[in-house]
Amino acid sequence: MNRSDRLDPLFRPRSVAVIGASRHRGSIAGEVFHNLVTGGFPGPVYPVNCAARAVQSVGAFSSVSELPETVDLAVVVVPTEHVLEVVTECAKCGVRGIVVITAGFAELGAEGKRLQDRLVTLVRSHRMHMLGPNCLGLLNTDPAVRLNATFAPTWPPSGPVSVASQSGAVGLAILDYAQALGIGINQFASTGNKADLSGNDFLEYWEHDASTRVILLYLESFGNPVRFMQIARRVSQKKPIAVVKSGRTEAGARAASSHTGALAGMDVAVDALLGQAGVLRTDTIEELFDVATLLANQPSPKGSRVAIVTNAGGPGIMAADACAGGGLLLPELSTLTVESLQSFLPRAASVGNPIDMLASAPAEHYERVLQVVHRDENVDATLVVFVPPLVTEAAEVAKAIVRAAADVSKPMLTCLLGTHGIPDAMEVLRRAKIPAYRFPESAVRALTRAVRYARWLARDGGTIPEFANVDAERARSMLARATAGWLSPAETCELLAAYGIGVAQMKLVRTAEEAAEAAATIGFPVALKLVSRQILHKTEVDGVRLGLASRDEVSRAFVSIQQGLAGRGELDKMEGALVQEMISGGVETYIGVTHASGFGALLGFGIGGVNIELWRDVAFRVHPLTSTDAKEMLEQIRGKALLEGFRGGPLADKEGIVDAILRVDRMVADNPEIEELDINPLIARRPGHGVVAVDARIRVRSTPT
Amino acid sequence: MNRSDRLDPLFRPRSVAVIGASRHRGSIAGEVFHNLVTGGFPGPVYPVNCAARAVQSVGAFSSVSELPETVDLAVVVVPTEHVLEVVTECAKCGVRGIVVITAGFAELGAEGKRLQDRLVTLVRSHRMHMLGPNCLGLLNTDPAVRLNATFAPTWPPSGPVSVASQSGAVGLAILDYAQALGIGINQFASTGNKADLSGNDFLEYWEHDASTRVILLYLESFGNPVRFMQIARRVSQKKPIAVVKSGRTEAGARAASSHTGALAGMDVAVDALLGQAGVLRTDTIEELFDVATLLANQPSPKGSRVAIVTNAGGPGIMAADACAGGGLLLPELSTLTVESLQSFLPRAASVGNPIDMLASAPAEHYERVLQVVHRDENVDATLVVFVPPLVTEAAEVAKAIVRAAADVSKPMLTCLLGTHGIPDAMEVLRRAKIPAYRFPESAVRALTRAVRYARWLARDGGTIPEFANVDAERARSMLARATAGWLSPAETCELLAAYGIGVAQMKLVRTAEEAAEAAATIGFPVALKLVSRQILHKTEVDGVRLGLASRDEVSRAFVSIQQGLAGRGELDKMEGALVQEMISGGVETYIGVTHASGFGALLGFGIGGVNIELWRDVAFRVHPLTSTDAKEMLEQIRGKALLEGFRGGPLADKEGIVDAILRVDRMVADNPEIEELDINPLIARRPGHGVVAVDARIRVRSTPT
Repeated sequence: MNRSDRLDPLFRPRSVAVIGASRHRGSIAGEVFHNLVTGGFPGPVYPVNCAARAVQSVGAFSSVSELPETVDLAVVVVPTEHVLEVVTECAKCGVRGIVVITAGFAELGAEGKRLQDRLVTLVRSHRMHMLGPNCLGLLNTDPAVRLNATFAPTWPPSGPVSVASQSGAVGLAILDYAQALGIGINQFASTGNKADLSGNDFLEYWEHDASTRVILLYLESFGNPVRFMQIARRVSQKKPIAVVKSGRTEAGARAASSHTGALAGMDVAVDALLGQAGVLRTDTIEELFDVATLLANQPSPKGSRVAIVTNAGGPGIMAADACAGGGLLLPELSTLTVESLQSFLPRAASVGNPIDMLASAPAEHYERVLQVVHRDENVDATLVVFVPPLVTEAAEVAKAIVRAAADVSKPMLTCLLGTHGIPDAMEVLRRAKIPAYRFPESAVRALTRAVRYARWLARDGGTIPEFANVDAERARSMLARATAGWLSPAETCELLAAYGIGVAQMKLVRTAEEAAEAAATIGFPVALKLVSRQILHKTEVDGVRLGLASRDEVSRAFVSIQQGLAGRGELDKMEGALVQEMISGGVETYIGVTHASGFGALLGFGIGGVNIELWRDVAFRVHPLTSTDAKEMLEQIRGKALLEGFRGGPLADKEGIVDAILRVDRMVADNPEIEELDINPLIARRPGHGVVAVDARIRVRSTPT
Repeated sequence: MNRSDRLDPLFRPRSVAVIGASRHRGSIAGEVFHNLVTGGFPGPVYPVNCAARAVQSVGAFSSVSELPETVDLAVVVVPTEHVLEVVTECAKCGVRGIVVITAGFAELGAEGKRLQDRLVTLVRSHRMHMLGPNCLGLLNTDPAVRLNATFAPTWPPSGPVSVASQSGAVGLAILDYAQALGIGINQFASTGNKADLSGNDFLEYWEHDASTRVILLYLESFGNPVRFMQIARRVSQKKPIAVVKSGRTEAGARAASSHTGALAGMDVAVDALLGQAGVLRTDTIEELFDVATLLANQPSPKGSRVAIVTNAGGPGIMAADACAGGGLLLPELSTLTVESLQSFLPRAASVGNPIDMLASAPAEHYERVLQVVHRDENVDATLVVFVPPLVTEAAEVAKAIVRAAADVSKPMLTCLLGTHGIPDAMEVLRRAKIPAYRFPESAVRALTRAVRYARWLARDGGTIPEFANVDAERARSMLARATAGWLSPAETCELLAAYGIGVAQMKLVRTAEEAAEAAATIGFPVALKLVSRQILHKTEVDGVRLGLASRDEVSRAFVSIQQGLAGRGELDKMEGALVQEMISGGVETYIGVTHASGFGALLGFGIGGVNIELWRDVAFRVHPLTSTDAKEMLEQIRGKALLEGFRGGPLADKEGIVDAILRVDRMVADNPEIEELDINPLIARRPGHGVVAVDARIRVRSTPT
């Protein structure tokens, strides 16, 4: 069975057994059976119940082995202690798909986890696939299947959106919301404890499912983030994925000593991963459906220029505010558009953007205005904000909008304010697949995300470059000799140099005399920096002296650092000092690496210096990075103007920075024992002149993994 | 008639005339009359129509003068050209309140504005009050009044929320939304063109209206922001005001040359004004009602510590995420609470925070858990997130929640996820005045704002201090001599000094020799700064030299600045240079003043240097500032750690900064011709040692106003 149909026994079974089916409506085991037999499933649904002759008037069987045929799917609702036994029997009988709704496994702790592990071993050794345990079940609204193997009280309308939810409760809420709003669901799975099948499996299944046009996920954790990214990045090329990932705060920021570690909580890694994979993240279930409705029903926007068409000033302004807040543009309309509009709209109407047709606008005006606006080359998408006045029938307006939308390849969204009383207008739009939102802000938020997805699809994904001057062998043999913990300055320099990252000329010294001598060799002016593995932030102990212009100044600075430490009782922490060539000019930047559990290496880039911790203006990407990922990091930071000659400051060599980021990424790929890395500052010289690391710290694990 | 009842003729008339009442339902003039006569208004509603004997079966009068009594309120729906005429007649007949629904006035341009001005003159000269023109009308749901003088198709439930909307369309949407969600409205006014009555008048009226517990405003503009602030600040002490202010982007950032001007768009002034007045600003109508429902029905939170009680893990996590995102805390529960909960909850339940009672929780558990949690001194508010499982009746859970909420002085919010099918549970909560939200995020957003309001109420408002060493006379006479535009360095110093703001010692020089001489007098090292009214950003032309340690260095620096300008062909822009004492150490801060149209002076505070434009980390307040306002500015900026010895840096004299901000505020109060002011940097020395202005620019208007 190949990848694209391996979940068919779950979503497209020919027959189903409900093991533990109950006669009692209102119980989970009763509702699951009820939903299956009343949902319109074309094949037989067999109740398996060792104590009853019939379940809800259907003749029952005492075990799976007594069924008249080998069922494709078994839904298990027996008590926890019997699950292993009935699944064993399913395996013997050749059942391919298992849904374990029963709870009481890993979610309860170690003992439950052991039971669950035995279940997984059993399932996998028989090449079965299992959803759950501890889940709400699954459903498929395909008219040829009509499978409702859940205990949810709702059966959503059929449509193009497939959903996987890690939480059964959120799954219930999702199905309820979809039904209330009339949003069409294709397939749904509650993944529960994800013991066997996880979100990744459903992504791959829906990737090849022609009736799924949009995939929604509610996630609380990633089993394997790296694998998720690989799959999601591929699937996103074919159809949009939108995600609510909760648990932002539980994960929290890791208490780490370095910049990147402190800055990058797990959630930063999640954001980076989803962004790189083209997955749209929303904060709420509401927003998840707002964007799904748009993506499932309307063409992709070619750009971010929005025309707002309204019959009321106030809501038009609210929509315009929301557009600006979301980074969408309100372009000037073309002269042709303006003239066309003026030819039939009343003089008091506004033909700017928003176009305010006035409350008196008849349905016909909506149609004519939209036809004109759609043809305007300055416009990528149209938002109609309609407030039902008395003079116009809302349903007529809706029909006019539908007529104007026919054969248009630009997305159209509508917002019907105060439409509580006009469900018929909503229904007209829904049938024509034109998204209708209650508030302008919801419409704009959805469009903002659709624009982001379109941009992601259209961008050049970039490549992972090969570097000529990388000496991975030298790095490996150096690291093989290094002890765990922070590398020495010499080791750090050697590692950076092995990956072709320029390092300021420097020398480790132990005495004031050595310092003066080294400075004379390097050439004045020099910097003198305390070396100590125990003191991480050297500026805080006044351990960094810059612009020393003579032997004498160098020697005195060395003694002064010693005296400062002695005064704090920390002189024994001083291992020596670095005499370093002064790099003058350029822009101070920062490159960092940390690890977020399970996500692998997380790379950060920002403006360097101490400010990085203050402003937290760092762009993150998870390894591996493409050239496009690296370039986008430079664009993403708020302080990017500093790279571009801000207020008469220097221009930075952006290509040099991108090159350095990609070299660091290669370094962590080759050397997984690198746990943490900070290059701060990495001085970016003027364009074409590269970058040079002035200070760097690298921490390695004891044993490479 | 005193202030508190002057709008009674509008909201509590004994009789009403509808001038222009139409026989045709579906027209505005027909709907207004229909709403009035069918809404349950206890007094007579007279149709005035010069062409009909009866309107909607009610005997009509051909003019106001023919009515059998003097009506309190006239609702005008005649064509624009007749409005002045009928209002004149109303004035003659002694009508006190006018609602002009008819459009066609100032919103159409200059001609309409003239007509409107005549209307206002007429109304005011007869001591009448007028709502509109160009509005939806007003309503009062008070059971003793039941006045619906609007053409809206909806009659919202009666309740404690009063609303004024500047947009009729948004007003329609608000009434519709209130009806759909069952949110009780007390009074409603659509202010239209605000020709006579504006939002300020309704604030003052509702301030004294016992049945109004929460005031909501939809605003597109402030007629008189200063007056709004005075009124809103007073009213907020008595009852909460929440506002949607649209037009964030239209206003945009003013194209000004200085820092504050460029940073502070009009919307920044709006934010500052609303914040200082204790008014809650929301982004959307949806959020406006979310917070209104909470404030109208629940006690005020004493703090920001929230307990989450749920029967489902996923939604609990979503609620916790939202709390953290909104700055609310999830405290540890007390040992007593934990032990009480463990005594009856199943072992698998989580008694942390969120408290997860598991899906199996019976209604009784909700009641017991909430009773225990309410008594916990670590908890200021409780959020119940409920997903209806099969085993528990949702309505029973709702009743248990209601029982637990009785006599509790802490706010309680609920979120019933997936409750589409259980309106009975919603109804139980609604009747008990317990807010029920569809999604956890909406509940948390509302609570976040309620906490902010409670904090504002509880804070010490501060005072506007008197300063001993302010020489306002000296400042006035200096400014009387000054020419419009940027003040000279000497004038700037004098003005700052007159207000007791320390300025670095400095001298204006014209030649290299004068510079060297001045430096020797001041004492080395010194700074040398280009003086030019035409070149605003001196660092960009390399016009600032620091740490000059000898006569020779000073003299060479002067010549070098000259040469630099000559190389750019800008030597003629050089008026001289300032030799200035070097202020070493301290923290660079920034104080600025700009004017936002109508808002008066807007003061900004932030961390100084060029970074201010990059990070836009500035706190704004509108004049006048209290000591509390000034103190809060220091707390509000993201970079506040820099004032507190960040990474071994110096501590800043916060009291000195607050003093300087208040002195600047006093300066702009005394001297309204000051249009713009930048002190950057204002060096804050260590605590107790004050601040000193190192660079400052002040621009004054030609004629004081």
